[in-house]
This record gives sequence, structure tokens and C-alpha cells, in this order.
Amino acid sequence: MATITGFRITDIRFPTSRSLDGSDAMNKDPDYSAAYLILDTDSSLTGHGFSFTLGRGTELQCATIELLAPKVVGMKVEELKGALGAIARDLVSDSQIRWLGPEKGLTHMAVGAVLTALWDLVAKHERKPLWEVLADMSPEEIVALVDFRYIRDVLTPEEALEILKKAEPTKGERKAKLRAAGIPAYTTSPGWLGYTDEKMVRLAKEAVAEGFTLIKLKCGGSIEDDKRRLRLAREAVGPLVRLAIDANQVWSVDEAIAWLQELHGVDLYWIEEPTSPDDALGHATIAKAIAPIRVATGEHVQNRIIFKQMLQLGAFSFMQIDSTRVAGPNENIANILMAAKFGIPVCPHAGGVGLCELVQHLSMFDYVAVSGENDARVIEFVDHLHEHFVTPVEIKNGRYLAPTEPGAGGEMFPDSIKRFTFPHGEEWH
Amino acid sequence: MATITGFRITDIRFPTSRSLDGSDAMNKDPDYSAAYLILDTDSSLTGHGFSFTLGRGTELQCATIELLAPKVVGMKVEELKGALGAIARDLVSDSQIRWLGPEKGLTHMAVGAVLTALWDLVAKHERKPLWEVLADMSPEEIVALVDFRYIRDVLTPEEALEILKKAEPTKGERKAKLRAAGIPAYTTSPGWLGYTDEKMVRLAKEAVAEGFTLIKLKCGGSIEDDKRRLRLAREAVGPLVRLAIDANQVWSVDEAIAWLQELHGVDLYWIEEPTSPDDALGHATIAKAIAPIRVATGEHVQNRIIFKQMLQLGAFSFMQIDSTRVAGPNENIANILMAAKFGIPVCPHAGGVGLCELVQHLSMFDYVAVSGENDARVIEFVDHLHEHFVTPVEIKNGRYLAPTEPGAGGEMFPDSIKRFTFPHGEEWH
Repeated sequence: MATITGFRITDIRFPTSRSLDGSDAMNKDPDYSAAYLILDTDSSLTGHGFSFTLGRGTELQCATIELLAPKVVGMKVEELKGALGAIARDLVSDSQIRWLGPEKGLTHMAVGAVLTALWDLVAKHERKPLWEVLADMSPEEIVALVDFRYIRDVLTPEEALEILKKAEPTKGERKAKLRAAGIPAYTTSPGWLGYTDEKMVRLAKEAVAEGFTLIKLKCGGSIEDDKRRLRLAREAVGPLVRLAIDANQVWSVDEAIAWLQELHGVDLYWIEEPTSPDDALGHATIAKAIAPIRVATGEHVQNRIIFKQMLQLGAFSFMQIDSTRVAGPNENIANILMAAKFGIPVCPHAGGVGLCELVQHLSMFDYVAVSGENDARVIEFVDHLHEHFVTPVEIKNGRYLAPTEPGAGGEMFPDSIKRFTFPHGEEWH
Repeated sequence: MATITGFRITDIRFPTSRSLDGSDAMNKDPDYSAAYLILDTDSSLTGHGFSFTLGRGTELQCATIELLAPKVVGMKVEELKGALGAIARDLVSDSQIRWLGPEKGLTHMAVGAVLTALWDLVAKHERKPLWEVLADMSPEEIVALVDFRYIRDVLTPEEALEILKKAEPTKGERKAKLRAAGIPAYTTSPGWLGYTDEKMVRLAKEAVAEGFTLIKLKCGGSIEDDKRRLRLAREAVGPLVRLAIDANQVWSVDEAIAWLQELHGVDLYWIEEPTSPDDALGHATIAKAIAPIRVATGEHVQNRIIFKQMLQLGAFSFMQIDSTRVAGPNENIANILMAAKFGIPVCPHAGGVGLCELVQHLSMFDYVAVSGENDARVIEFVDHLHEHFVTPVEIKNGRYLAPTEPGAGGEMFPDSIKRFTFPHGEEWH
């Protein structure tokens, strides 16, 4: 029996602001960072999880994880899998810490880091990639992972079970297809707001050559810039590649509608984060006003309760779950199940540090065990910082290939951790 | 010219869990606490603000305030008042820290602590209580304090100005009435879930004798307990005193509706926090299903964007702003203005540590300068921990009397700070 004996937490920051990688209308100078957790055991197993952050404040995220991590020390790795539903519920329910959220922001993301590290242990213990661990669980086991508190008015455990049971008989076929062909990716790499037109056009052309069929540009700086960049991008990629734009919450509801009406006639696939991620009703208002342009959001949606309302209100056409914003794989399973009930495709947010590595597992679980075939399913891909991960994503012909190595995907190389530790790692001298 | 020269932050905790003061269905063992900020100046002025917390995690709230406080060092006290709108906007907009919210949880509450301390400096500099500083500002000055981002679809600056201008000619009359008679309070002191029936009944009778006309009981433990406690309370207070109950978010939407239907026939004034504070649509569903019982919520509502949706959806009959949950007086002014537009009375949450001392100023500002006369306006009162404050609330005949001393109300005695500092103060040995 392997037992969790302790933990190590590291503030890891990459100086990405130096090159304006990741720059958009709201996030002008991000230093992509991770509040990084390693759970140690008395065997050779280690569990790795993290919260993705943007630089300043990563020390707070680390301190928040440090407050929660002691709760899992002493747990037996072999017993984790059947207990993770209860553990997840317990981690969000601390009777004093809950006040600091509840279920949102720093405290909630810390729960996510701890749960991701626990799932990493489970997957490594079973010698499977996380997507396969999840996909191989029975419908009843999967339902037991979910906290239905606050969502049972739209999804009961019985309804969740029904969705999963419907998918079960054909899981094997989809597993085989996934292993053969992966899941489509889309790329944001060309579109950062800080890039020149020339760099954007060059990268967009490269992306098409690499097989991507959907490219996303940041927008919302100025309407003239947006129109010019979209025209140049369309010329670069041709008529068949989809173009999406991402406003990163710069607008109020009325401003979003006015701005997007200026872009009518441009062939747009979606507008992402047109306003505050807290505004479910506002997204619904925008979605109605700007159709046929479709709304996507989710990377800042704090928990299943906001997603629930967005689904109820018809606020978006694409649910963009994020692997470290909410309380780990468990809450994202709730999000995926709710989306399946409403027939909304889950198109995860990724990029940052290791978000691609983590979230692909959830999308693949969704494909195999929950919602099945869906032509609209696509995972964001940004070509940054993968070299620091022990099992980096594999992208081929614009598709995420199914991971084969054991684990949840978030393990970084010890040397990368050391070099980028803030503020004393050598990259920060 | 006085200048802010530095700051001190203290983790202050009161061991209230020892007596089950403050116990409810969600918060079983709170140690009422404050992440406490003092802004020092090069004059004798000091500015005091804090975030209210429940014990564990207060060190995180302190660390978050520590990350933001340096932004105000060097500011001139005399120049603050005209700049506080811009300062508030700047504090929530740090391009890296914003990722950790945005505008919610630890980071947002930290902004609130900093702004409260700044307002304390402004009020002390003007030698007025905060309510009067705010009430004496012109409509244009007040509008300049508000961040309309994400709320302008329901309240434009022009509409806010109109509301304030309408109230302006009669401000003087209401000021005089406020000074003469104060604002009604209600009390939660009798109703904690950990109290015996005998203690609850005794305290309820005492509250009526002291002039309170609304008493609130915690509920949601078991339906039988709730029925018994409500029956005993009604017998104790007689037919004319209003009874409200508070579920502290224990239910999902469907559970709330079923539970409250069991309580039909009991003469209830409101049900507070029936479900997740994030669920604007869920509150609206509950409100429709349980009428004529009315819904109240707000102490956990993270920001103006959730309040906005609750107003749009008709989710509650009473808006319960909290003085340290959101980004300080500025954001609460936004909340108060939105409520005024919708004709919803603002009935603040208080209790905890110093929440009564702080929030009364906002309610009095609301009365004098925004929404004017409203029979439903009532401020929560809990008789805990006031002895630690330099200007404690004055309650007479069940009413909050208007503060006359300069400041925002949150200054604690140095000796209290020292004794209850966690973990090294003498009260924690």
C-alpha cells in the first residue's frame, strides 16, 4: 500500500511577458506561471498538479494550496479512486476556508490543484493515462465523483447515469478511433494582440499548413485593428478555415453587441469571452443579439453553478472548460455531463502552462464515455512551454493524439521546475 | 499634505467557535476574524480597513492585502477623494492578479480592505463619519466613484446621476431625521443553530423588549427543528414581530423549494440564502415558487455583476450587501444604485467582526442620498465583539443611531489587535 507522506509546493514562473506571448486586450503582460504541487508517497509514485496563474499572486495560489494539501496526507493511493467524490466534496467544504470563496477564485483553484495531483497518483498507480482511467470507470463510479449540490435542478444523478449508460456500449469503438486519429485542435498561436500583422499572417499560414482548420485571433483593442486583422487573416487562410475571435472580457454587454454588429459580414465562427465571465444573463443577451455569430466562454467561469446558468439561459454555443480554474477533474466531469444534457459541445480552453497537457484527458473522456461523436468538439492548442513537461502533448495534422503514458499529464521536469522557480531560479536572475 | 507612508497587516482571530456564536447550517465552527490593514501616514492620521473571515485562511487574506497595499503607498490623503473611482478601478485591474478572480474571492475582498482603509483616511481628514462624507458629495462626484464596467446594460452613469439628483433636494431633511432617529435594525443574536431552544427563546424575548421588530433564526438543520424553533419563537415574540430565517446556502434549488413548502402557513418575512450565492437564476426560480415568502441574499454575493443579474431576474426582495465581501464602498455604491433603480430595499448583512460598524455608513448614505424613505430598510445587528472597536455601533430602541465620530468605523483598539493576533496573541495561548 502506497501512502501519501507529504507534499512540495513551488512557485514557477515563465517570463513570457518579455515577448508578448499571451497578450490580449485584458491580459497585457502575462508571465505564464504555475502554483505547482507534488504529492510524495512512500513508494516511487509522485502526484503532480497545479493552478495556472499569470505571475504576480502565484505565491498566494501556492499558499492556498499549502492550506489544503495537508488534508490528503496519510491517504492510501490504492483507496483514492473510490473516495475521490467524497474527497472533492470535503476539500470545498472546509467550514472556515469556505467563506473565502465559496467555490471560486484562489481557494477553488487550489482544490483543483490538489485533486489533479490525486488523479495523477491514481492514473500512475493504474499505469494508464487519465483519460483512460476515467473512460474505463462504470457509469455508477463516474456519477459518484460528482458533487450534485447546486446543480441537481438541471442534472440529477439519475439523469447523469442515463447519459453515461447510453454511451457505454460504444465506448470501445470510440477508444479505438481516438487512438487512431485523436481529437481536433484549434490554434491561438498566431493571434496574440501584441504580434505584428506580418507575424500573425505568417503564423496563420503555417497553422493551416500544419492541418489546423480553426484559428483564433485576439480582438477588442480597436475596431479598426480587428477589421484589418480579420481581413488579413481571411486572406491568409482561405475561405475554408474557420476564424474565431476572443475579446477576453473587455466589453460590457451593450458594448459587445455594438462592436460585434460592426463585424457582421465577416465570416466568424465564434466570439469568445465578450463580457464578464460572471454574467450568464449578459452572455445570453449577447448571444441572442449577435446571432448567427456564436458565443463561446468558460476559461474564467468559476464553477459548475455559473456554467449551469449559462446552459439554462442559452448563453453560449461552446462550453470552454479549463483544467485548473475549477475544482479539478471532478467538477469538470459535472460540467461535461451538464453540457451533454444540453447538447452543447465542450471545447476546452488551453494554452498557458500545461493546460493542453491536462485538459486533453477531459476532452477524450468526454468523447469516449459521455457525449460521443460531435463534429464541433475541438481543443485549443497554443504552442508554448510544452518542452517543460514529461509527457508533452502530441499534435499531428491539427489533432491532439491520445496520450499513452500513465498519469494526468501535468508533471514537469525537475530541471524546469528548478530553473523557473520564482524568484530564485536561474531564469529570474 | 499628509502622505501614505506604509502599512501594517495583522491576522486577528476571535475564538468564537468555543461558544458556538455564529453557528449555522453551513458554518459550524467559525472563529470570527479580520485580515486587518492599517495605512500609516506622515501625519497622525491612520486609515483602517479589513476583510472579515472565519478563521483558517485569514493568513491568505492578509497575504492578498499585502500584495495590493503597496499600490497606495505614496498617495496624498488630500487628493484621495477625487481619485477613489480611478483607484478602485486600478486595484481590480492588475493585469496579472486579475486572473486569480477576477473580481471575486480573496483578491476582491482584499481590494475592499484597501478601499475601506482609504475611505477611513478621507473621512478622518474631513472630520466626518463616512456616511456623511458620501452623502455630502455631489451626484457627479458619486457617479465618478462607480465602475460601470459590466453593469451599464442595467445602469448607465446618466441613470445613476438621475437617481442621485432626484434625491438631492431633500437630503437635508433626511440627514436631520437620521440624526434624530437612526435606521431600524434587526437581530440575529437569538437564532444561532448551536443555541438551545431555551437560550433562543430567552434571547428572542429580550430582543423584543429592546425594541427589535424583526428577528432572524438560522434554519436548514432539520425540518422538524425548524418547525419547532419557529413555533417557539413565534410564541415568544407575539404576532407583530417579524420572523425571518436563514439557510446559509445548504440547499439545491429543488430542495429549497420543497423545504420551504413545508413551512407554508408559518408567518415568515424572508428566507435568506436558500442556495448558492452564485445562482441568480436559481434564486429567481425559488422566489417564484415560494411566494408569498420572500427571498433575501447577498452576504456571499461576490460582486456587482451577480447582484445585477439577481435584479434583472427578480431573484430577491431584499438586497443584503456586505461591507467586506465586495471591492469596498465603491462597489457597494454601485449595488445601492442598482437596487434603487429596481426599487429593491438594501438590507445589509452585518455581524461578524465589525461588519455592523462598517455597513451602517453605507445604509445611511443610501437613505440620505440615494433611495430615501423605505419602510423595508433594515440593517442586521448581532451583539458580538463591538467592544473592540474605537467607535462601536450605538443601538437604541432597535435602531442604529447615526455615527458622529470621524472615519469609516472599522478602527480597532490597539490592545484588542494585540491580544487577538493569531497565533501569538495572548488569547491564543
